[in-house]
Amino acid sequence: MYEIVLVRHGESEYNKQNLFTGWSDPDLTEKGIQEAKEAGRTLKQAGYTFDLAFASVLKRSIKTLNYILEELDLLWIPVQKSWKLNERHYGALQGLSKSETAVKFGEEQLQIWRRSLSVRPPLLEPDDPRYARNDIRYKDVRPGDIPRGESLEDTVHRVGEFWNQRIVPLVMKKERVLISAHGNTLRALIKYMEDIDETALLSLNIPTGVPLVYELDEEVNPIRRFYLGEQEKIQVKAAEVANQGKVSE
Amino acid sequence: MYEIVLVRHGESEYNKQNLFTGWSDPDLTEKGIQEAKEAGRTLKQAGYTFDLAFASVLKRSIKTLNYILEELDLLWIPVQKSWKLNERHYGALQGLSKSETAVKFGEEQLQIWRRSLSVRPPLLEPDDPRYARNDIRYKDVRPGDIPRGESLEDTVHRVGEFWNQRIVPLVMKKERVLISAHGNTLRALIKYMEDIDETALLSLNIPTGVPLVYELDEEVNPIRRFYLGEQEKIQVKAAEVANQGKVSE
Repeated sequence: MYEIVLVRHGESEYNKQNLFTGWSDPDLTEKGIQEAKEAGRTLKQAGYTFDLAFASVLKRSIKTLNYILEELDLLWIPVQKSWKLNERHYGALQGLSKSETAVKFGEEQLQIWRRSLSVRPPLLEPDDPRYARNDIRYKDVRPGDIPRGESLEDTVHRVGEFWNQRIVPLVMKKERVLISAHGNTLRALIKYMEDIDETALLSLNIPTGVPLVYELDEEVNPIRRFYLGEQEKIQVKAAEVANQGKVSE
Repeated sequence: MYEIVLVRHGESEYNKQNLFTGWSDPDLTEKGIQEAKEAGRTLKQAGYTFDLAFASVLKRSIKTLNYILEELDLLWIPVQKSWKLNERHYGALQGLSKSETAVKFGEEQLQIWRRSLSVRPPLLEPDDPRYARNDIRYKDVRPGDIPRGESLEDTVHRVGEFWNQRIVPLVMKKERVLISAHGNTLRALIKYMEDIDETALLSLNIPTGVPLVYELDEEVNPIRRFYLGEQEKIQVKAAEVANQGKVSE
């Protein structure tokens, strides 16, 4: 049996302001830093250790990982960063608030973008400064692979590919892996791994900074998943995320 | 022409208490954190950017690097950590203060350990808890390669090997490399690269948290090196290191 631990980054500046984030790169808030450290302490208390770790190329994910590793005294383990673990790309909605978006596009349309598995948000124009082709951190990515806006299904596709190519071989070698990523990246991963229906998936509110443990069988299929820590606290956090309208996306 | 940037980590808890550090793993002090951030700001102001970075497996080096990368908004670049960039191993002196050492072994002997290129400190016993064979972070290192105490010459050897095998190929591909390491690791690297005599080498006081730029010719031989930042401040810092008796080692 194998095991892997996933963590959603702590609260970011955009989460706090209730903005669509996607590939935008806001910093953690002070609360987010504390959440990350708390995740590290929870893992430590439960006796977890890791051989290597993954993060996206967004600083809220990397910093969350660094705080966790520091608590575990594991800053020295190898860390791999990949854009394939980036948050779902929210296209032209990135940087907009939920209320702005509702005014601009209507409440109904907003709900479709947020609740549908397959509908993409309005795409970025090629000359939009938010388009990642202009960002040096994506210089080695094939231009055609850089999204201008993703449906959750698009995110499932790229995260699933990364899971198969990069994570599974390590898990099968009994490497203990920690992944620090984003709300929709983790939701996408869960969709990829489990036969979970759309409603259940979209109502899955992953709390920030709480370690999510996956137990996997010999073929790296999931047996069960559970959050680490005080279950009561975690439920409160998950409810908070749900009430925020999930634009922590 | 190529260029590479080296930084000695900011002040650590052991530096502050004037203890021999070596492979011990103390944290940065608050001053050390500020020095690291300042190094990042200096690099930013001078327009530096990097494609990848190196650190040792000791947290003072890794955290210094993380603070620098954060200032440069480069947390997303690949970071490689290697024990070959660790500080000179100070054997059984690790954790002792300069004054304890002088009392225990005599002032003259102390000076030989600190000033000689080829004399090793008293070695750790194989069952010493400070011996790194018992430390999980060195589990992939060949046991025979794990020192129980190094002369500066030993450090020159391992750092030189690392330079040739891991750094030079990157520099020749025009990758912009940043290395966050330690006082004696950097001194060892300078010895490896330059025809510098023992006296000059041992009186070389590398200030903490100041970017040291190496300009290299087409064959990756050094043309010149210089510190980045306000030269007056840097001289003060170097003098401080000299006065500390260099047990920031």
